[in-house]
Amino acid sequence: MRIALGVEYDGANYYGWQRQKEVISVQQKLEEALSLIANHTVTVNCAGRTDAGVHGTGQVVHFETTADRKDVAWTLGVNANLPDDIAVRWVKQVDETFHARFSATARRYRYIIYNAPFRPGILRSGLSHYHHPLDAQLMQQAGQHIIGEQDYTSFRALHCQANSPVRSIEYLNITRRGDFIIIDIKANAFLHHMVRNIAGSLIEVGRGKQPVDWLATLLALKDRSKAAATAKPGGLYLVEVDYPEQFALPRPAIGPLFLEQ
Amino acid sequence: MRIALGVEYDGANYYGWQRQKEVISVQQKLEEALSLIANHTVTVNCAGRTDAGVHGTGQVVHFETTADRKDVAWTLGVNANLPDDIAVRWVKQVDETFHARFSATARRYRYIIYNAPFRPGILRSGLSHYHHPLDAQLMQQAGQHIIGEQDYTSFRALHCQANSPVRSIEYLNITRRGDFIIIDIKANAFLHHMVRNIAGSLIEVGRGKQPVDWLATLLALKDRSKAAATAKPGGLYLVEVDYPEQFALPRPAIGPLFLEQ
Repeated sequence: MRIALGVEYDGANYYGWQRQKEVISVQQKLEEALSLIANHTVTVNCAGRTDAGVHGTGQVVHFETTADRKDVAWTLGVNANLPDDIAVRWVKQVDETFHARFSATARRYRYIIYNAPFRPGILRSGLSHYHHPLDAQLMQQAGQHIIGEQDYTSFRALHCQANSPVRSIEYLNITRRGDFIIIDIKANAFLHHMVRNIAGSLIEVGRGKQPVDWLATLLALKDRSKAAATAKPGGLYLVEVDYPEQFALPRPAIGPLFLEQ
Repeated sequence: MRIALGVEYDGANYYGWQRQKEVISVQQKLEEALSLIANHTVTVNCAGRTDAGVHGTGQVVHFETTADRKDVAWTLGVNANLPDDIAVRWVKQVDETFHARFSATARRYRYIIYNAPFRPGILRSGLSHYHHPLDAQLMQQAGQHIIGEQDYTSFRALHCQANSPVRSIEYLNITRRGDFIIIDIKANAFLHHMVRNIAGSLIEVGRGKQPVDWLATLLALKDRSKAAATAKPGGLYLVEVDYPEQFALPRPAIGPLFLEQ
Protein backbone atom coordinates (compact mmCIF):
# COMPACT_ATOMS: atom_id res chain seq x y z
CA MET A 1 0.00 0.00 0.00
CA ARG A 2 1.01 3.63 -0.41
CA ILE A 3 1.30 5.94 2.61
CA ALA A 4 1.68 9.72 2.67
CA LEU A 5 3.25 11.58 5.61
CA GLY A 6 3.53 15.23 6.62
CA VAL A 7 7.03 15.90 7.94
CA GLU A 8 8.57 18.77 9.93
CA TYR A 9 12.31 19.25 10.38
CA ASP A 10 15.00 21.67 11.43
CA GLY A 11 17.53 21.45 8.61
CA ALA A 12 20.44 22.98 10.57
CA ASN A 13 22.18 19.67 11.23
CA TYR A 14 21.63 18.07 7.81
CA TYR A 15 23.23 18.28 4.40
CA GLY A 16 19.83 18.86 2.91
CA TRP A 17 16.86 16.63 2.29
CA GLN A 18 18.30 14.25 -0.27
CA ARG A 19 20.13 11.08 0.73
CA GLN A 20 23.85 11.28 0.00
CA LYS A 21 26.83 9.08 0.67
CA GLU A 22 28.98 9.99 3.68
CA VAL A 23 26.90 12.91 4.98
CA ILE A 24 23.61 12.81 6.87
CA SER A 25 20.35 13.90 5.30
CA VAL A 26 16.76 14.23 6.45
CA GLN A 27 15.72 11.59 3.89
CA GLN A 28 18.18 9.06 5.31
CA LYS A 29 17.01 9.57 8.91
CA LEU A 30 13.35 9.34 7.89
CA GLU A 31 13.89 6.21 5.79
CA GLU A 32 15.78 4.55 8.64
CA ALA A 33 12.97 5.26 11.11
CA LEU A 34 10.27 4.12 8.65
CA SER A 35 12.20 0.95 7.83
CA LEU A 36 12.32 0.04 11.53
CA ILE A 37 8.54 0.38 11.82
CA ALA A 38 7.82 -1.35 8.49
CA ASN A 39 10.37 -4.10 9.13
CA HIS A 40 11.54 -3.77 5.53
CA THR A 41 13.58 -1.21 3.63
CA VAL A 42 11.53 1.91 2.93
CA THR A 43 12.35 4.52 0.28
CA VAL A 44 10.51 7.82 0.31
CA ASN A 45 9.66 10.35 -2.41
CA CYS A 46 9.29 13.95 -1.28
CA ALA A 47 7.45 17.01 -2.60
CA GLY A 48 10.46 19.33 -2.48
CA ARG A 49 14.14 18.56 -1.92
CA THR A 50 15.32 21.27 0.45
CA ASP A 51 18.97 22.35 0.56
CA ALA A 52 21.42 22.11 3.45
CA GLY A 53 20.28 24.23 6.40
CA VAL A 54 16.77 24.75 4.99
CA HIS A 55 13.81 23.68 7.12
CA GLY A 56 10.50 22.02 6.42
CA THR A 57 7.22 22.30 8.27
CA GLY A 58 4.95 21.17 5.44
CA GLN A 59 7.11 18.63 3.64
CA VAL A 60 5.11 15.72 2.19
CA VAL A 61 6.47 12.28 1.33
CA HIS A 62 5.03 9.01 0.16
CA PHE A 63 6.34 5.46 0.32
CA GLU A 64 5.30 1.91 -0.46
CA THR A 65 4.98 -0.69 2.27
CA THR A 66 3.76 -4.22 2.72
CA ALA A 67 3.42 -3.62 6.46
CA ASP A 68 -0.08 -3.27 7.86
CA ARG A 69 0.31 -0.79 10.73
CA LYS A 70 -2.01 1.47 12.66
CA ASP A 71 -1.69 5.21 12.00
CA VAL A 72 -0.09 5.71 15.41
CA ALA A 73 2.82 3.49 14.36
CA TRP A 74 3.56 5.83 11.41
CA THR A 75 3.37 8.92 13.66
CA LEU A 76 4.33 8.31 17.30
CA GLY A 77 6.17 5.10 16.44
CA VAL A 78 8.26 6.73 13.71
CA ASN A 79 8.83 9.85 15.83
CA ALA A 80 10.25 7.68 18.62
CA ASN A 81 12.88 6.47 16.14
CA LEU A 82 13.70 9.85 14.58
CA PRO A 83 16.25 12.39 15.81
CA ASP A 84 14.54 15.16 17.79
CA ASP A 85 14.90 17.65 14.91
CA ILE A 86 12.66 15.61 12.57
CA ALA A 87 9.01 14.75 13.32
CA VAL A 88 6.04 13.24 11.49
CA ARG A 89 2.97 15.55 11.73
CA TRP A 90 0.32 13.39 10.05
CA VAL A 91 -0.22 10.16 8.11
CA LYS A 92 -2.75 9.17 5.46
CA GLN A 93 -3.09 6.10 3.28
CA VAL A 94 -3.32 7.13 -0.39
CA ASP A 95 -4.06 5.31 -3.61
CA GLU A 96 -1.47 4.58 -6.26
CA THR A 97 -2.29 7.66 -8.31
CA PHE A 98 -0.74 9.82 -5.57
CA HIS A 99 2.89 10.88 -5.89
CA ALA A 100 4.37 13.35 -3.36
CA ARG A 101 6.33 15.14 -6.07
CA PHE A 102 4.39 14.67 -9.30
CA SER A 103 0.90 15.15 -7.85
CA ALA A 104 1.88 18.41 -6.15
CA THR A 105 0.33 21.46 -7.81
CA ALA A 106 2.11 24.16 -5.78
CA ARG A 107 4.72 24.74 -3.09
CA ARG A 108 4.77 27.53 -0.53
CA TYR A 109 7.84 28.80 1.32
CA ARG A 110 8.37 31.32 4.09
CA TYR A 111 11.69 33.13 4.45
CA ILE A 112 12.15 34.78 7.86
CA ILE A 113 14.57 37.65 8.34
CA TYR A 114 15.42 38.80 11.87
CA ASN A 115 16.02 42.49 11.20
CA ALA A 116 17.75 43.86 14.30
CA PRO A 117 21.09 45.51 15.09
CA PHE A 118 22.57 42.51 16.94
CA ARG A 119 22.48 38.88 15.95
CA PRO A 120 20.20 36.62 18.02
CA GLY A 121 21.35 34.01 20.55
CA ILE A 122 17.96 32.27 20.37
CA LEU A 123 16.65 30.42 17.27
CA ARG A 124 19.87 31.29 15.44
CA SER A 125 19.66 28.52 12.83
CA GLY A 126 15.97 29.19 12.22
CA LEU A 127 16.26 32.82 11.14
CA SER A 128 18.30 34.85 8.70
CA HIS A 129 19.78 37.82 10.56
CA TYR A 130 20.11 41.14 8.74
CA HIS A 131 21.31 44.10 10.80
CA HIS A 132 20.63 47.08 8.49
CA PRO A 133 17.03 48.35 8.69
CA LEU A 134 14.86 46.96 5.88
CA ASP A 135 11.73 48.60 4.46
CA ALA A 136 9.20 45.80 4.06
CA GLN A 137 6.84 48.02 2.04
CA LEU A 138 9.50 48.63 -0.60
CA MET A 139 10.22 44.91 -0.68
CA GLN A 140 6.50 44.19 -1.11
CA GLN A 141 6.26 46.61 -4.03
CA ALA A 142 9.38 45.16 -5.64
CA GLY A 143 8.09 41.62 -5.37
CA GLN A 144 4.91 42.35 -7.31
CA HIS A 145 6.98 42.94 -10.45
CA ILE A 146 8.06 39.31 -10.77
CA ILE A 147 4.92 37.29 -10.07
CA GLY A 148 3.04 35.34 -12.73
CA GLU A 149 4.46 32.94 -15.30
CA GLN A 150 7.99 34.08 -16.03
CA ASP A 151 11.47 32.99 -17.05
CA TYR A 152 13.35 33.06 -13.74
CA THR A 153 16.84 32.56 -15.16
CA SER A 154 18.08 35.56 -13.13
CA PHE A 155 17.05 33.87 -9.88
CA ARG A 156 18.18 30.35 -10.70
CA ALA A 157 21.35 28.67 -9.37
CA LEU A 158 23.95 28.21 -12.10
CA HIS A 159 23.99 24.46 -11.46
CA CYS A 160 20.19 24.15 -11.52
CA GLN A 161 19.25 21.08 -13.55
CA ALA A 162 15.64 21.89 -14.39
CA ASN A 163 14.76 21.62 -18.08
CA SER A 164 12.98 24.96 -18.19
CA PRO A 165 13.56 28.27 -16.34
CA VAL A 166 9.85 29.08 -16.54
CA ARG A 167 7.84 28.91 -13.33
CA SER A 168 4.60 30.50 -12.17
CA ILE A 169 4.61 32.50 -8.92
CA GLU A 170 1.07 32.77 -7.57
CA TYR A 171 1.95 35.31 -4.87
CA LEU A 172 4.98 36.90 -3.25
CA ASN A 173 4.11 38.83 -0.09
CA ILE A 174 6.52 40.61 2.21
CA THR A 175 5.32 41.74 5.63
CA ARG A 176 6.91 42.98 8.83
CA ARG A 177 5.98 41.63 12.25
CA GLY A 178 8.07 43.43 14.84
CA ASP A 179 11.70 42.58 14.11
CA PHE A 180 10.72 39.81 11.68
CA ILE A 181 10.38 40.34 7.96
CA ILE A 182 8.49 37.44 6.43
CA ILE A 183 8.67 36.62 2.74
CA ASP A 184 5.75 34.37 1.81
CA ILE A 185 5.93 32.88 -1.68
CA LYS A 186 3.87 30.30 -3.56
CA ALA A 187 4.56 28.90 -7.02
CA ASN A 188 3.74 25.82 -9.02
CA ALA A 189 7.38 24.79 -8.52
CA PHE A 190 10.73 26.42 -7.82
CA LEU A 191 14.11 26.42 -9.52
CA HIS A 192 17.19 25.66 -7.47
CA HIS A 193 17.93 28.49 -4.97
CA MET A 194 15.03 30.47 -6.47
CA VAL A 195 13.50 31.61 -3.16
CA ARG A 196 16.86 32.50 -1.62
CA ASN A 197 17.96 34.35 -4.77
CA ILE A 198 14.74 36.35 -4.84
CA ALA A 199 15.15 37.02 -1.08
CA GLY A 200 18.69 38.26 -1.62
CA SER A 201 17.57 40.76 -4.24
CA LEU A 202 14.55 41.86 -2.19
CA ILE A 203 16.93 42.64 0.68
CA GLU A 204 18.88 45.02 -1.58
CA VAL A 205 15.66 46.87 -2.36
CA GLY A 206 14.56 46.85 1.29
CA ARG A 207 17.85 48.39 2.30
CA GLY A 208 17.39 51.12 -0.29
CA LYS A 209 20.42 50.15 -2.36
CA GLN A 210 18.33 49.31 -5.42
CA PRO A 211 15.11 50.82 -6.78
CA VAL A 212 11.70 49.22 -6.42
CA ASP A 213 11.68 48.10 -10.04
CA TRP A 214 15.06 46.37 -9.72
CA LEU A 215 13.65 42.84 -9.61
CA ALA A 216 11.70 43.57 -12.81
CA THR A 217 14.94 44.73 -14.43
CA LEU A 218 16.75 41.59 -13.26
CA LEU A 219 13.94 39.37 -14.51
CA ALA A 220 14.16 40.92 -17.96
CA LEU A 221 17.96 40.50 -18.09
CA LYS A 222 17.74 36.71 -17.68
CA ASP A 223 21.24 36.78 -16.16
CA ARG A 224 21.93 35.31 -12.71
CA SER A 225 25.15 37.27 -12.38
CA LYS A 226 23.30 40.60 -12.25
CA ALA A 227 21.11 39.72 -9.23
CA ALA A 228 22.14 39.80 -5.55
CA ALA A 229 23.87 37.01 -3.66
CA THR A 230 21.85 34.02 -2.51
CA ALA A 231 20.32 34.71 0.92
CA LYS A 232 21.35 32.41 3.78
CA PRO A 233 19.51 29.09 4.17
CA GLY A 234 18.61 29.28 7.88
CA GLY A 235 15.57 31.52 7.39
CA LEU A 236 13.91 29.32 4.77
CA TYR A 237 10.99 26.97 5.47
CA LEU A 238 9.03 24.78 3.05
CA VAL A 239 5.67 25.38 4.74
CA GLU A 240 3.01 23.89 2.47
CA VAL A 241 2.48 21.71 -0.58
CA ASP A 242 -0.80 21.72 -2.50
CA TYR A 243 -2.42 18.61 -3.98
CA PRO A 244 -5.68 18.06 -5.82
CA GLU A 245 -8.62 17.87 -3.42
CA GLN A 246 -9.37 14.28 -4.39
CA PHE A 247 -6.45 13.11 -2.20
CA ALA A 248 -7.99 14.81 0.86
CA LEU A 249 -4.67 15.23 2.66
CA PRO A 250 -4.60 16.93 6.09
CA ARG A 251 -3.97 20.70 6.10
CA PRO A 252 -2.40 21.59 9.45
CA ALA A 253 -1.17 25.09 10.40
CA ILE A 254 1.59 25.91 7.98
CA GLY A 255 4.34 26.83 10.39
CA PRO A 256 6.99 27.37 11.47
CA LEU A 257 5.14 26.80 14.70
CA PHE A 258 6.53 29.90 16.43
CA LEU A 259 4.78 32.14 13.85
CA GLU A 260 1.44 30.37 14.23
CA GLN A 261 0.65 31.10 17.88
CA MET B 1 35.64 50.61 35.37
CA ARG B 2 32.51 48.52 35.74
CA ILE B 3 30.50 47.45 32.70
CA ALA B 4 27.02 45.87 32.58
CA LEU B 5 25.84 43.74 29.65
CA GLY B 6 22.49 42.28 28.58
CA VAL B 7 23.01 38.72 27.34
CA GLU B 8 20.85 36.30 25.34
CA TYR B 9 21.60 32.59 24.99
CA ASP B 10 20.20 29.25 23.98
CA GLY B 11 21.14 26.98 26.86
CA ALA B 12 20.66 23.71 24.97
CA ASN B 13 24.36 23.10 24.42
CA TYR B 14 25.62 24.20 27.85
CA TYR B 15 25.86 22.66 31.30
CA GLY B 16 24.19 25.75 32.68
CA TRP B 17 25.32 29.29 33.26
CA GLN B 18 27.97 28.74 35.88
CA ARG B 19 31.58 28.01 35.01
CA GLN B 20 32.58 24.43 35.82
CA LYS B 21 35.63 22.31 35.26
CA GLU B 22 35.53 19.91 32.31
CA VAL B 23 32.13 20.92 30.90
CA ILE B 24 31.22 24.02 28.93
CA SER B 25 29.10 26.79 30.40
CA VAL B 26 27.67 30.07 29.14
CA GLN B 27 29.79 31.95 31.69
CA GLN B 28 33.00 30.39 30.40
CA LYS B 29 32.23 31.28 26.78
CA LEU B 30 31.25 34.83 27.69
CA GLU B 31 34.34 35.37 29.85
CA GLU B 32 36.59 34.05 27.08
CA ALA B 33 35.09 36.44 24.53
CA LEU B 34 35.24 39.41 26.93
CA SER B 35 38.86 38.61 27.85
CA LEU B 36 39.83 38.72 24.19
CA ILE B 37 38.33 42.18 23.78
CA ALA B 38 39.64 43.48 27.12
CA ASN B 39 43.08 41.93 26.61
CA HIS B 40 43.05 40.78 30.23
CA THR B 41 41.21 38.07 32.14
CA VAL B 42 37.59 39.03 32.72
CA THR B 43 35.31 37.48 35.35
CA VAL B 44 31.57 38.15 35.22
CA ASN B 45 28.87 38.22 37.87
CA CYS B 46 25.35 37.40 36.66
CA ALA B 47 21.83 38.18 37.86
CA GLY B 48 20.59 34.59 37.78
CA ARG B 49 22.52 31.34 37.33
CA THR B 50 20.39 29.30 34.96
CA ASP B 51 20.52 25.49 34.93
CA ALA B 52 21.61 23.18 32.12
CA GLY B 53 19.33 23.53 29.10
CA VAL B 54 17.67 26.71 30.40
CA HIS B 55 17.80 29.82 28.21
CA GLY B 56 18.29 33.51 28.86
CA THR B 57 17.03 36.49 26.90
CA GLY B 58 17.30 39.07 29.69
CA GLN B 59 20.35 37.87 31.60
CA VAL B 60 22.43 40.70 33.05
CA VAL B 61 26.11 40.54 34.00
CA HIS B 62 28.72 42.99 35.19
CA PHE B 63 32.50 42.87 35.14
CA GLU B 64 35.53 45.00 35.94
CA THR B 65 37.93 46.07 33.25
CA THR B 66 40.92 48.36 32.84
CA ALA B 67 40.32 48.41 29.07
CA ASP B 68 38.91 51.58 27.57
CA ARG B 69 36.75 50.36 24.68
CA LYS B 70 33.94 51.81 22.65
CA ASP B 71 30.48 50.32 23.23
CA VAL B 72 30.60 48.59 19.87
CA ALA B 73 33.59 46.56 21.04
CA TRP B 74 31.55 45.17 23.96
CA THR B 75 28.62 44.31 21.66
CA LEU B 76 29.61 43.54 18.05
CA GLY B 77 33.21 42.82 19.03
CA VAL B 78 32.26 40.37 21.76
CA ASN B 79 29.54 38.79 19.60
CA ALA B 80 32.11 38.08 16.92
CA ASN B 81 34.04 36.03 19.48
CA LEU B 82 31.07 34.21 21.00
CA PRO B 83 29.50 30.95 19.80
CA ASP B 84 26.38 31.64 17.74
CA ASP B 85 24.05 30.56 20.57
CA ILE B 86 25.23 33.39 22.87
CA ALA B 87 24.89 37.10 22.05
CA VAL B 88 25.32 40.43 23.82
CA ARG B 89 22.17 42.61 23.46
CA TRP B 90 23.32 45.85 25.09
CA VAL B 91 26.14 47.43 27.07
CA LYS B 92 26.22 50.21 29.68
CA GLN B 93 28.95 51.53 31.90
CA VAL B 94 27.81 51.49 35.54
CA ASP B 95 29.22 52.86 38.78
CA GLU B 96 30.68 50.69 41.51
CA THR B 97 27.44 50.52 43.47
CA PHE B 98 25.95 48.31 40.74
CA HIS B 99 26.11 44.53 41.14
CA ALA B 100 24.29 42.30 38.63
CA ARG B 101 23.16 39.91 41.34
CA PHE B 102 22.89 41.97 44.51
CA SER B 103 21.38 45.10 42.97
CA ALA B 104 18.62 43.09 41.24
CA THR B 105 15.21 43.62 42.78
CA ALA B 106 13.26 41.03 40.76
CA ARG B 107 13.62 38.33 38.14
CA ARG B 108 11.06 37.32 35.52
CA TYR B 109 10.89 33.96 33.74
CA ARG B 110 8.76 32.59 30.94
CA TYR B 111 8.11 28.87 30.64
CA ILE B 112 6.77 27.83 27.22
CA ILE B 113 4.84 24.61 26.74
CA TYR B 114 4.11 23.37 23.21
CA ASN B 115 0.79 21.64 23.81
CA ALA B 116 0.12 19.49 20.75
CA PRO B 117 -0.35 15.79 20.02
CA PHE B 118 3.00 15.31 18.26
CA ARG B 119 6.39 16.58 19.31
CA PRO B 120 7.87 19.42 17.22
CA GLY B 121 10.78 19.11 14.80
CA ILE B 122 11.35 22.88 14.92
CA LEU B 123 12.58 24.77 18.02
CA ARG B 124 12.73 21.48 19.92
CA SER B 125 15.23 22.61 22.59
CA GLY B 126 13.41 25.92 23.07
CA LEU B 127 10.03 24.49 24.09
CA SER B 128 8.69 21.96 26.54
CA HIS B 129 6.39 19.57 24.65
CA TYR B 130 3.31 18.24 26.43
CA HIS B 131 0.93 16.12 24.34
CA HIS B 132 -2.16 15.85 26.58
CA PRO B 133 -4.50 18.85 26.27
CA LEU B 134 -3.96 21.41 29.04
CA ASP B 135 -6.54 23.89 30.32
CA ALA B 136 -4.71 27.20 30.74
CA GLN B 137 -7.61 28.76 32.62
CA LEU B 138 -7.42 26.09 35.33
CA MET B 139 -3.66 26.62 35.50
CA GLN B 140 -4.18 30.36 35.86
CA GLN B 141 -6.63 29.88 38.72
CA ALA B 142 -4.31 27.43 40.43
CA GLY B 143 -1.36 29.77 40.19
CA GLN B 144 -3.10 32.60 42.02
CA HIS B 145 -3.09 30.52 45.21
CA ILE B 146 0.67 30.66 45.63
CA ILE B 147 1.62 34.26 44.88
CA GLY B 148 2.81 36.73 47.51
CA GLU B 149 5.47 36.20 50.17
CA GLN B 150 5.49 32.50 50.99
CA ASP B 151 7.60 29.58 52.14
CA TYR B 152 8.22 27.69 48.86
CA THR B 153 9.77 24.58 50.40
CA SER B 154 7.37 22.41 48.34
CA PHE B 155 8.74 23.86 45.09
CA ARG B 156 12.41 23.92 46.02
CA ALA B 157 15.02 21.44 44.81
CA LEU B 158 16.22 19.16 47.60
CA HIS B 159 19.81 20.31 47.03
CA CYS B 160 18.89 24.04 46.98
CA GLN B 161 21.45 25.93 49.06
CA ALA B 162 19.49 29.13 49.78
CA ASN B 163 19.38 30.11 53.47
CA SER B 164 15.65 30.73 53.44
CA PRO B 165 12.77 29.07 51.54
CA VAL B 166 10.80 32.34 51.62
CA ARG B 167 10.40 34.24 48.38
CA SER B 168 7.90 36.77 47.10
CA ILE B 169 6.08 36.06 43.80
CA GLU B 170 4.73 39.29 42.35
CA TYR B 171 2.69 37.58 39.63
CA LEU B 172 2.19 34.17 38.07
CA ASN B 173 0.15 34.32 34.86
CA ILE B 174 -0.69 31.42 32.60
CA THR B 175 -2.07 32.13 29.14
CA ARG B 176 -2.65 30.15 25.94
CA ARG B 177 -1.57 31.42 22.51
CA GLY B 178 -2.52 28.81 19.95
CA ASP B 179 -0.60 25.64 20.81
CA PHE B 180 1.65 27.50 23.25
CA ILE B 181 0.93 27.73 26.96
CA ILE B 182 3.05 30.48 28.50
CA ILE B 183 3.77 30.65 32.21
CA ASP B 184 4.95 34.16 33.10
CA ILE B 185 6.33 34.54 36.61
CA LYS B 186 8.07 37.34 38.46
CA ALA B 187 9.52 37.22 41.97
CA ASN B 188 12.15 39.02 44.02
CA ALA B 189 14.28 35.89 43.63
CA PHE B 190 13.82 32.18 43.00
CA LEU B 191 14.86 29.00 44.78
CA HIS B 192 16.63 26.29 42.82
CA HIS B 193 14.24 24.63 40.30
CA MET B 194 11.39 26.78 41.68
CA VAL B 195 9.91 27.79 38.30
CA ARG B 196 10.18 24.30 36.85
CA ASN B 197 8.70 22.72 39.99
CA ILE B 198 5.77 25.14 39.94
CA ALA B 199 5.36 24.46 36.19
CA GLY B 200 5.32 20.70 36.80
CA SER B 201 2.52 21.02 39.35
CA LEU B 202 0.57 23.50 37.20
CA ILE B 203 0.66 20.94 34.37
CA GLU B 204 -1.01 18.37 36.65
CA VAL B 205 -3.84 20.85 37.30
CA GLY B 206 -4.06 21.83 33.61
CA ARG B 207 -4.46 18.20 32.66
CA GLY B 208 -7.26 17.79 35.20
CA LYS B 209 -5.42 15.29 37.36
CA GLN B 210 -5.36 17.60 40.38
CA PRO B 211 -7.87 20.21 41.64
CA VAL B 212 -7.43 23.95 41.20
CA ASP B 213 -6.47 24.39 44.86
CA TRP B 214 -3.73 21.75 44.64
CA LEU B 215 -0.83 24.20 44.58
CA ALA B 216 -2.23 25.87 47.71
CA THR B 217 -2.34 22.47 49.39
CA LEU B 218 1.23 21.74 48.31
CA LEU B 219 2.42 25.13 49.54
CA ALA B 220 0.92 24.49 52.98
CA LEU B 221 2.53 21.03 53.19
CA LYS B 222 6.08 22.43 52.86
CA ASP B 223 7.14 19.08 51.44
CA ARG B 224 8.85 18.82 48.04
CA SER B 225 8.03 15.12 47.75
CA LYS B 226 4.29 15.82 47.51
CA ALA B 227 4.50 18.12 44.45
CA ALA B 228 4.84 17.05 40.81
CA ALA B 229 8.08 16.24 39.00
CA THR B 230 10.32 19.09 37.85
CA ALA B 231 9.25 20.26 34.37
CA LYS B 232 11.85 19.96 31.59
CA PRO B 233 14.41 22.76 31.23
CA GLY B 234 14.02 23.47 27.48
CA GLY B 235 10.93 25.64 27.85
CA LEU B 236 12.42 27.98 30.45
CA TYR B 237 13.74 31.48 29.71
CA LEU B 238 15.11 34.09 32.12
CA VAL B 239 13.52 37.05 30.33
CA GLU B 240 14.03 40.10 32.55
CA VAL B 241 15.84 41.36 35.63
CA ASP B 242 14.73 44.50 37.47
CA TYR B 243 17.14 47.05 38.95
CA PRO B 244 16.57 50.35 40.71
CA GLU B 245 15.86 53.15 38.24
CA GLN B 246 19.01 55.02 39.24
CA PHE B 247 21.10 52.59 37.15
CA ALA B 248 19.07 53.44 34.03
CA LEU B 249 19.77 50.13 32.32
CA PRO B 250 18.28 49.45 28.87
CA ARG B 251 14.94 47.63 28.80
CA PRO B 252 14.66 45.81 25.47
CA ALA B 253 11.77 43.53 24.50
CA ILE B 254 11.80 40.68 26.99
CA GLY B 255 11.87 37.73 24.62
CA PRO B 256 12.24 35.02 23.63
CA LEU B 257 12.26 36.89 20.34
CA PHE B 258 9.83 34.53 18.58
CA LEU B 259 7.09 35.53 21.07
CA GLU B 260 7.71 39.24 20.66
CA GLN B 261 6.87 39.71 16.98
